[in-house]
Amino acid sequence: METPKGDSQKNYRSSGDLLTNRQAKKDDTVIKVKGIEIGGRDIIIIAGPCAVENKEQLLETAKIVSSGGANILRGGAYKPRTSPYSFQGLGEEGLKYLSEARKLTGLPVVTEVMDTRQMELVCKYTDIIQIGSRSMHNFPLLKEAGKCRKPVLFKRGLMATVDEYLLAAEYILSEGNDQVILCERGIRTFETSTRHTLDLSAIPILKRRTHLPVIVDPSHGTGHSWLVPAMAKAAIAAGADGIMVEVHYKPLEALSDGPQSIYPNDFVQLVKDIEKIARAVGRKIYRHNLSLT
Amino acid sequence: METPKGDSQKNYRSSGDLLTNRQAKKDDTVIKVKGIEIGGRDIIIIAGPCAVENKEQLLETAKIVSSGGANILRGGAYKPRTSPYSFQGLGEEGLKYLSEARKLTGLPVVTEVMDTRQMELVCKYTDIIQIGSRSMHNFPLLKEAGKCRKPVLFKRGLMATVDEYLLAAEYILSEGNDQVILCERGIRTFETSTRHTLDLSAIPILKRRTHLPVIVDPSHGTGHSWLVPAMAKAAIAAGADGIMVEVHYKPLEALSDGPQSIYPNDFVQLVKDIEKIARAVGRKIYRHNLSLT
Amino acid sequence: METPKGDSQKNYRSSGDLLTNRQAKKDDTVIKVKGIEIGGRDIIIIAGPCAVENKEQLLETAKIVSSGGANILRGGAYKPRTSPYSFQGLGEEGLKYLSEARKLTGLPVVTEVMDTRQMELVCKYTDIIQIGSRSMHNFPLLKEAGKCRKPVLFKRGLMATVDEYLLAAEYILSEGNDQVILCERGIRTFETSTRHTLDLSAIPILKRRTHLPVIVDPSHGTGHSWLVPAMAKAAIAAGADGIMVEVHYKPLEALSDGPQSIYPNDFVQLVKDIEKIARAVGRKIYRHNLSLT
Amino acid sequence: METPKGDSQKNYRSSGDLLTNRQAKKDDTVIKVKGIEIGGRDIIIIAGPCAVENKEQLLETAKIVSSGGANILRGGAYKPRTSPYSFQGLGEEGLKYLSEARKLTGLPVVTEVMDTRQMELVCKYTDIIQIGSRSMHNFPLLKEAGKCRKPVLFKRGLMATVDEYLLAAEYILSEGNDQVILCERGIRTFETSTRHTLDLSAIPILKRRTHLPVIVDPSHGTGHSWLVPAMAKAAIAAGADGIMVEVHYKPLEALSDGPQSIYPNDFVQLVKDIEKIARAVGRKIYRHNLSLT
Repeated sequence: METPKGDSQKNYRSSGDLLTNRQAKKDDTVIKVKGIEIGGRDIIIIAGPCAVENKEQLLETAKIVSSGGANILRGGAYKPRTSPYSFQGLGEEGLKYLSEARKLTGLPVVTEVMDTRQMELVCKYTDIIQIGSRSMHNFPLLKEAGKCRKPVLFKRGLMATVDEYLLAAEYILSEGNDQVILCERGIRTFETSTRHTLDLSAIPILKRRTHLPVIVDPSHGTGHSWLVPAMAKAAIAAGADGIMVEVHYKPLEALSDGPQSIYPNDFVQLVKDIEKIARAVGRKIYRHNLSLT
Repeated sequence: METPKGDSQKNYRSSGDLLTNRQAKKDDTVIKVKGIEIGGRDIIIIAGPCAVENKEQLLETAKIVSSGGANILRGGAYKPRTSPYSFQGLGEEGLKYLSEARKLTGLPVVTEVMDTRQMELVCKYTDIIQIGSRSMHNFPLLKEAGKCRKPVLFKRGLMATVDEYLLAAEYILSEGNDQVILCERGIRTFETSTRHTLDLSAIPILKRRTHLPVIVDPSHGTGHSWLVPAMAKAAIAAGADGIMVEVHYKPLEALSDGPQSIYPNDFVQLVKDIEKIARAVGRKIYRHNLSLT
Repeated sequence: METPKGDSQKNYRSSGDLLTNRQAKKDDTVIKVKGIEIGGRDIIIIAGPCAVENKEQLLETAKIVSSGGANILRGGAYKPRTSPYSFQGLGEEGLKYLSEARKLTGLPVVTEVMDTRQMELVCKYTDIIQIGSRSMHNFPLLKEAGKCRKPVLFKRGLMATVDEYLLAAEYILSEGNDQVILCERGIRTFETSTRHTLDLSAIPILKRRTHLPVIVDPSHGTGHSWLVPAMAKAAIAAGADGIMVEVHYKPLEALSDGPQSIYPNDFVQLVKDIEKIARAVGRKIYRHNLSLT
Repeated sequence: METPKGDSQKNYRSSGDLLTNRQAKKDDTVIKVKGIEIGGRDIIIIAGPCAVENKEQLLETAKIVSSGGANILRGGAYKPRTSPYSFQGLGEEGLKYLSEARKLTGLPVVTEVMDTRQMELVCKYTDIIQIGSRSMHNFPLLKEAGKCRKPVLFKRGLMATVDEYLLAAEYILSEGNDQVILCERGIRTFETSTRHTLDLSAIPILKRRTHLPVIVDPSHGTGHSWLVPAMAKAAIAAGADGIMVEVHYKPLEALSDGPQSIYPNDFVQLVKDIEKIARAVGRKIYRHNLSLT
């Protein structure tokens, strides 16, 4: 077997040769999902509950975010939880509810995969595969995502530099899948008044260094629902191609991430406020049905 | 001598009793400097060179930022530099040039003080006293700033939590000076693609917890001039009452912070872009002379 | 389906009920591997190359560390690499060389597993399963490790608090495997003169809060071979039950982690120096064959 | 006025030219204070209360640490406190008690100075001037310390890289005072189970890069008295020239830092344990009176 020479510092291609690099591909990558364009001129809104908890919760929340202006529905069937004794997600049952929600609302869905063995199953049900921040360095999982035919929403690890994040994305692209949506979701710092520190400067840096779409998750990035609107607006002002927010029809009863989930009414207001910022930077929120505007 | 009891955890007032706390004073503190209101409905722009390097540099840059839409002129006469062999500022000579620049443009000036022994001198020349991030925990200096009659632009330390920052501001207020402008300017994290990580979530947190004006310095917060426009817009979208940016008439020749100083033309464009964001959040940039708009 | 109530904060057992907690099991867990006791009175030395690169490199290094005083041989067959274009390990071929090295030296071996699908294969070849820092939050992998019958060397994530680390270990124990060796290997901080910051205070904290053995990896923890001896000694002085160090017979030619691998001669000296520190804290290095001492 | 050219990156001497650098001075700097050598073959123990609270507390604690084996007495007369409402120190009264304690025990004293205006007064009373971590970037204060004739115990800032720390020390040396004792006392990280993260790898790094003595403060570095012994031993094992610990005759009544102060009995045991580690690395604790050993 022939093995490459040199250590980690010397051993990868020069950054200009990386598939994620803008020098390798000048034009923005625009990802199409059921007619929606991610990374194009319009910005997109992904919304939904942290976890799929039961059929009613998902379908109710799906209807709310759909009529409120979301373009894509989020919801976790497999949940990475800090404690093994926390709710771990409904698994395939959750995936089935997501399918129902898609049928009901017409919204494409995004859901997380955590295990290489789940990849095939999750791919069958979802429109976009999510790889969460705790899995950013799960290289076998990245390779599997690279082999599948679905777009990948790939979150930055909470401990990852921008360099490491892009090299991890390279694992997906190097397997032949360039449909990767980057997502800033907060990094770990010494500050304790937020759950994480949302690193919005990563937006212009990623947009300059790569051709991939960049969105922001202010729900995980702050950990407090009352901070979500300000940071969502800031993200769009800084050049993000979209946001992903957690909305729950009854946040106080959420099995996961209740404190950072916003109320349905607040979501409706948030979309209106984001539209204003989008206009101020020469963009608008993507609309399936223009009559809604 | 009577000494208080208990350790640091127990020994300070409950947070609701702190002078900086919004519970202690519900209304926003609006600071007036030569007719400009900081922390009111309008947002303000502070601009100028990092350091006062010589008369020509300061006056030229002052004219540029004044005509470009700045409300207040910044410039350092005393510079805290990492190395003792770097340019340390012009001292009183620099303060005199700032006075000339004020006369020339009509803009009030803000400049940093680093030493309790300089306080009286700096106060004589400046409209706003700046206390820099490296001095955030210089308690004797904070007390002196609290005793003087000038507004204080008080920067967050790059290692300070929001809690520590507000307790440090309390040192100024507890001496009788409540004219304090808070300023987020980046915190230290593991990320290396920026000089610091601009913590924009601190804006809504500070606005909720205190009645003091909150501005943002995207120049120090990022360390790269090309990141300044995106982060300045994001700051206003997140609710900041103003921004402070470094502008140099010849950035490549700057004695300090050249890489993060923007060009005059970029400043003009930045003000226009900020105005759009300000409108999107129901505000506008303060204008001395309304005919300029 | 019955689902648990409450969010992540409320949803796990009280810390005293956790299987990792010393309140749940007062006596130290002592793990036996081919007659070696880990977490007992003696301290243990794990040494070997970062990656298994070829048969000669592994066998030569194995002989060196064995005669130098190592108790367990390390070597990676599957390597988590920041870039997809870096050497990724030899896979099963590497596992076979590890078997040969074990036969040659009599030392038990430890090697990393990264993918749930590899667990069965790796278990077949290795004496101790390693879960690396990048996989600390790979919950499906932790559950698989919990189901297997081999001891697990479980490294702390480079951005994980002690609390999160112990909750992640709980995933392994809650599946029925309490043979878990904890390993501090450096956390990510702002400091750039080391690769990571070795958090030695985690040793007494972990020893107090849990009954599990705690070892330290000063090679990854510092990233510089010349720092390894000082930090290895400090680890033992602070109460660690052992150390794991990277040794390469030709560090300059290493395919991975060359800069942090020590030379064979330095390893021999290191073991002697550690023995002195061990004696100063009332312990000694475990010896298979006492005639070696 | 002639001003230097270039920005902060270019403007300081090459590191080999820095006065702190070992290339500039190959031999270790050994600082003599009343016959004690700091940075020589023997290690030294600095102990005492965080703050001088009253005469009895200081004199009682001084007697305890003196008979327990301390070489130098510490105690703060001016205290940098996070909140303005916490105990701020006794000021000159505290300095007088320190003089009394020195007379009583024969131990030299070290105390902190926070304000350029206090420098002359503090110098008059103390044997070693301490500059605390919050003042590490107080450049005017560093320059004043550089002008005085007393040794300076100079603590690392809690968010300072080793590079920044050495450049700050350079401010003292460049004014003509090379009697500088470096002190690692914990850096700020995301970890919350300790007050700070004691960065022991800084010891070998500083010893390699500079000729100055390096000590460690495990009391501030951990924030918990029960962690002090383990980390003090680790510091000596890693090559530190001494340690500084907080001892209080009644920790539960301490006005400052009670939770990290150790009991008199624990101090006596700690000195014995440190002696063993010192011997294991070929050193010993400095003894005024050899009959004590």
